[in-house]
Order: sequence, then C-alpha cells, then structure tokens
Amino acid sequence: MRQSQLFTKTQKEAPADEVAKNAKLLIRAGFVDKLQAGVYTYLPLGLRVLKNIENIIREEMNSVGGQEILMPSLQPKENWQTTGRWDTMDDLYKVIDISGRENALGPTHEEIVVPLVKQFISSYRDLPFATYQFQNKFRMELRAKSGILRGREFIMKDMYSFHRNETDMIAYYEKMKGVYANVFERVGIGATTFLTFASGGSFSKYSHEFQTITSAGEDTIYICDKCRVAVNNEIIEDQKHACPECGGKNLRAETSVEVGNIFELKTRFSAPFNLSYKDEDGKDQSVVMGCYGIGLGRVLGTVVEVLGDEKGLVWPDAISPFGVHIVELGGSGDDIVRKESQKLYDELISKGIEVLWDDRDLRAGEKFAESDLIGIPLRVVVSSKTIASESFEIKNRATGEVSLVGKDELMAMCKAK
Amino acid sequence: MRQSQLFTKTQKEAPADEVAKNAKLLIRAGFVDKLQAGVYTYLPLGLRVLKNIENIIREEMNSVGGQEILMPSLQPKENWQTTGRWDTMDDLYKVIDISGRENALGPTHEEIVVPLVKQFISSYRDLPFATYQFQNKFRMELRAKSGILRGREFIMKDMYSFHRNETDMIAYYEKMKGVYANVFERVGIGATTFLTFASGGSFSKYSHEFQTITSAGEDTIYICDKCRVAVNNEIIEDQKHACPECGGKNLRAETSVEVGNIFELKTRFSAPFNLSYKDEDGKDQSVVMGCYGIGLGRVLGTVVEVLGDEKGLVWPDAISPFGVHIVELGGSGDDIVRKESQKLYDELISKGIEVLWDDRDLRAGEKFAESDLIGIPLRVVVSSKTIASESFEIKNRATGEVSLVGKDELMAMCKAK
Repeated sequence: MRQSQLFTKTQKEAPADEVAKNAKLLIRAGFVDKLQAGVYTYLPLGLRVLKNIENIIREEMNSVGGQEILMPSLQPKENWQTTGRWDTMDDLYKVIDISGRENALGPTHEEIVVPLVKQFISSYRDLPFATYQFQNKFRMELRAKSGILRGREFIMKDMYSFHRNETDMIAYYEKMKGVYANVFERVGIGATTFLTFASGGSFSKYSHEFQTITSAGEDTIYICDKCRVAVNNEIIEDQKHACPECGGKNLRAETSVEVGNIFELKTRFSAPFNLSYKDEDGKDQSVVMGCYGIGLGRVLGTVVEVLGDEKGLVWPDAISPFGVHIVELGGSGDDIVRKESQKLYDELISKGIEVLWDDRDLRAGEKFAESDLIGIPLRVVVSSKTIASESFEIKNRATGEVSLVGKDELMAMCKAK
Repeated sequence: MRQSQLFTKTQKEAPADEVAKNAKLLIRAGFVDKLQAGVYTYLPLGLRVLKNIENIIREEMNSVGGQEILMPSLQPKENWQTTGRWDTMDDLYKVIDISGRENALGPTHEEIVVPLVKQFISSYRDLPFATYQFQNKFRMELRAKSGILRGREFIMKDMYSFHRNETDMIAYYEKMKGVYANVFERVGIGATTFLTFASGGSFSKYSHEFQTITSAGEDTIYICDKCRVAVNNEIIEDQKHACPECGGKNLRAETSVEVGNIFELKTRFSAPFNLSYKDEDGKDQSVVMGCYGIGLGRVLGTVVEVLGDEKGLVWPDAISPFGVHIVELGGSGDDIVRKESQKLYDELISKGIEVLWDDRDLRAGEKFAESDLIGIPLRVVVSSKTIASESFEIKNRATGEVSLVGKDELMAMCKAK
C-alpha cells in the first residue's frame, strides 16, 4: 500500500489521558483510536495486526479439530438465570429490548454454547468435539486504564470442548497447553510467556493461565526456570512457595499479564442445562466440558508492551501489518528514485509480500522516525545514493542494524507469509 | 472435512416457530441456529458461507481503495446527541454502564466514523478516501419474522467515503453502483437484482437500493427491463409510474428484498461534527460524504430464498461452504470404497478444493437427501459400482443432472476458489 493513500496519520505526542504504553504507542502510530475508556477502534494498520493474530489462532484451533462458529451478543436473561450468573456476575451489561425482555451482552458464551450443542448430542458417538469463535465480548470494567489490555468491548477467541468423561477432557486439555504455547510462540512472545498454575475456583484444583512478563501486567507470578512454569500469586501460599512440577523452591517473582487461560469446566455448565448423552449401556451421563480463551486485543497489546521500545512499535514478522517498509527519499521530485521504488514495490508484491511504501514528500528524518514508530520489521531505503551504489539500505527494526545489500540478497530476505 | 466429525446434524422437520423459507432451510440443514427472534448463531457450514460472502465484499471494497477498520458497538450517547438521533431513532438499543453513562449499541456508525476521521483531515490533500468495516449491528426490530433477512443483531459491511465536493462524491458514488453490481453478481443473485431508485430522505433526490426479486421480500419495486433498473414503491407516484432513466411506462411490479443501499450523505453528518478541510485558498470547506451498506446475513438469506428448492439449499460455487460433496456408499464396511474415497478426498484437497466427505454409516437414500439439503454444487458418489466402472457418479445440485465421468474429467471440473 502507498502510504500517501493511508487515511490515518501518526502523532508526535501521545494523548494526555492514556497512561498505558500499549495505548500510547498504538494511538501515536495510528493503529488504534480510543472512543471511550476501554473501547477502541482498530484502524487499518492495527486491524491488519489483529487479523494476523486471528489467523494464527484459527490455524492452531483447527489443528486440534476446532470447528468455527459465531454466536450472538444479545443473550436471553433466562439462559443466564439457568446458570445462576444473571445476578452474580458484576460486570454483566444488561439491555432491555422494545418488548421489555432483558438480555445480557455476552461477556462469555457458556450460556449459549451449551443449549446450542445440546440439540446435536444424544449418544456417546457424538462426542468428543470442540467448537470456537472470534466474538466481541462486553464486560463492564470498573477501571479501564490499561489501554487495549483490558477493554469493556474486546474480541476474544473462546473455544469449548465436549467429552464423555474427565479422562478424555483432560487429554484434550493437556493437548491445548501445547497449542496455546504454539500461539504465543508464533505471535512473538513465546520467550516471555509461562504456563501458570492458578486457582481453579470450585471445580478443579488448578486452572491454567498463560502469563507474559511485563511491567504493564496486573498479576504477580512465581517462575520456576527449571520447569518453565509459574505459579499465580493467588495460590502461592497454598503451594508453600514451591513449583507444582518439581517441588523446587527457587522461584522468581515477576509482574505479568494473563494472555490466555484454559479451564476444566467439568459439569459446571452441562449440569444446569442437562447436557447429557447415552453411554454404550444406554445410561444417561453428563457431558464433561473444557474451555479455552484468548483475548486478541490483549495479545496485541502485550506484544507492544514486551517488544516496543523508546522509538515505537516493534512487530514480529508473523503479525506485522506489512513485511517490508519501503522509504523513498526525494521520489516525487526525482523520477529515477520514484521509478526504482515502484519497481521494487511491484516485485515484492508479485512475490506475495505485503509492502507499505512511503511515497510522501517529507524530510528523511521525519520518514525514518515514523518508520521506527510504525515498527515494520524491515525498512528499505531507496534514494539517489542507494541507486548510485546499485544497492538498497536496509534496517532491521528489532536490532537497529543498518546495512547495504544488493537486489538479489534483498529479495532472498523477504518471504511471503 | 469428514462429515462424521461435523458436530451439527441436519433435521427432518423445520422448527414450528419459523415461517421464513431461509430460516427453515438453514436450520434444517444445520447452517444456523435461532437463539431468539432475530438473533441467530452461525454454525460451521453457515459461517463458511458467511465468510465467503465477506471475502467477496472485501475484495470489491479494496478494489475501489476502501481501507478496512473495525469500530466499536458501545457508542457514547453524546455522539448520538450531536446528530440528534439519540431521541429520534426508534430501534436504538440503549445500555447504561456501571458509572451511569449511557451508550447506544451501534445500529450504524456515522456517529463514530465522522469524529474518528476528523483527527486525520485538515487539508484538501487528505481527501478523498473511503473506509469500511464488517461489524455487528444492533437494531431493536419490532417484528423479526423474516429469518436472517431482518435481524436484531446482524453483521453488516458499512463503507463511508469522504470528499472535497459533491462532484467528487458523485463520481465515487457512481463507481460504487458498479462495485455493488459485481458483489451481487459474484454471490449468485446478479440476474434477479436491480439497481432501484428510492426516496433520498432530506438530503438528495434519490438514494439507490439494490433489490432482489423474491416473494420473501417486504418491498415492491417497478422494473424497467429495457434499462435494467427499478423504482421503489415509495416513489413510484412521484415518478408518475415512469422509468427514471428512459421515461418508459412499461414497468412490471415485483416483490423484492433490499440487499444493499448507497446514500449520498453530503454534509448530513459532517456538519454536526464540524468535519471540514482547508481548500487550496486556505478556506474552510465541509467534507462531503457518501455511505454504502450491505447486510451479510441478508445477502445469505436472499440467496437461499432465490435459489433454494423443495429439496433444500442450492449454493453458487463462489459462496458454497464446500466445492465438492463426496458421498461414499458402504465405505466403513467396505475397505476398497473407503480407500478410493480417501484417495479422491486427498487429491481434491491437494488441489486446493474444499471437500465435505460423507463418511458416515447411513443408507444411500438418507445420504442423498441430506446432500441435497446441504446444497453443495457438485456431489460425487463413490461406491463399489462406480469403482467397478472406473468412474464417478456426479450430480449437479442446481440442475439435478446426474452423469458418470472418469477421474480426469472430474478433476478438470473441480477448480480451487
């Protein structure tokens, strides 16, 4: 895309009312816009990142047989009364419609997915399976000060799995730990993300969270570097400050943010909706469930918190809005530079690489600062100087390394996603 | 995908409370599920169709420079007061949050997009551009009896364009007529969809709708076959029952449904938000706007109304959930049939074709009836009989034509999307 066509602009200063690094950088770089506390618009650059994260998650959920669906936000009060959560969930938005009927604005979808799948489950032969969606969630957060880390409206991937018994559910649950680790590895925060033991509420000893180390987080975790797992602050006393895997007491405390979680729901939601199946002996048995969530904006914001630096955003290849940022110097007044930029742009595009081409009339310093702020992994400068030397000046955004390379070398570096 | 893995099932009978053909067929075939009046879940098969429609629309919007974003549903009351629509829009859902602040649940996004783009527009050099999104909309419909044709919650593509003057806006608006025609052609309802002159409200003589002929519609249009345009019932008196293009009076009345609309908004929304730019002389000028909507569920439901028959759904290739439906007869008890089915499945998949493979143990009649109900364009039967004749039995769902073809011929018929 030609940058002169992009309708958004970068800003020199962060908005005064934002305290979170993720929101400051994303707003300055033109990736998101704040409509109100905890409610953001994704602008063209930000939406490209969000969609890349979504596609990675979709591939991983499909790899374990997840079947994608899309459930509604307007959820009947009755469903929430059945599980008892209409009155107990503090952050539930409630809406009254024209006929006086009350609805919840879905903060999660157990109340919808369980009666939905009930229609399709009768026998043990119908199990197991898993279904997931990417859906807007609504939660009436009291404080929404963490930028896109904690929203009142946010897109979440929520998957629900259905099993004949706990053994089968736990086998799937264990597999999901690996799938979640893949997701966080692929989006670029694998090294700083830990499987974390947390309190399981009433239905299991532990639940598991994926926590990423960042000072922007609201949690404290205790990491066992030997096992590469962590314990959430809320259960560290019960755990007697020991690693649940090796029993070691050499744990380091870190501030972190929860980027995903997996729960053994067991029969917490199948029971109130009477979700059961007939086993091989014709006996009714309760369906056993698991659930698995990832907030997409939360992940995006966490990548910014972890990788962003004083110059701006730093995107990993897999989720960057573009693979290459061509910065042309003097192009609109210099036919040769413009022609050379266009040629490079066309060649990269024809290789399936997504390119942002800064074709605007601005000073070099301004263009470089903006390129650093936007954070595309590879910057390529085209100028009369680079043309004279029959090379391109490239900069690796993450390392800051600048070098001159020939056309063949440059093309070999750029790979389509 | 193996059909034995699909967690949904088809139903013999349509739900008693559904009157609309689209909802009856889509629910029976397992494409959607009704949560409450006007509020539906998209199941795996239905979501695949919806995503295909979304991708076609996205390509068409991108072809005219549209830049995709994603705006929120929780919209501050103040924005709606600024345009005067907080009190005048009957079907607006209103939500109060924990701090007592009121929000609208977005039924459309003019109130959000205008203040958003205001940040990025200062000079005539910033214009024109267009931005669009696919977003859930909420409208408190009094009656929601048309299945997915008229929902309380539904996904819409809404695009907004911004221009220096009316001439520029109208040129873009004219281009959008062609783009919309492409969309309806590509999703398979081009032949029955007409550009329709409708009342423009207060800000222009006409608006334009795209209306598709179907008895399920709530509108009446008067078609001029010579010009391939129509006039909406609401302005036919004013038009003196004549075609607005050729003046001819030979119009035929048809019942129809609106599948898309385009509006010249002019300064209706830029004025209240003070959206202006400095022209070449440094004078402030109002930004002139157009807007362009398509309801995705509405389009999907209309395809069902227009093409569905007494046996079930009939999908055009471009939006079908799968390209090919392999129906294996006796496979799980017949190793040779199972092996041959698997081989064909793998070959089609490796060509990039999406395949549903009915690998279940059911009678042939039941499988054929279900295949007709699901409506994939090409059915391929694999049985001991077809294997003996070294051919495949294929059926064209739309025409009902059945024939025997060799492997090469079959592979040549199947094209990746």
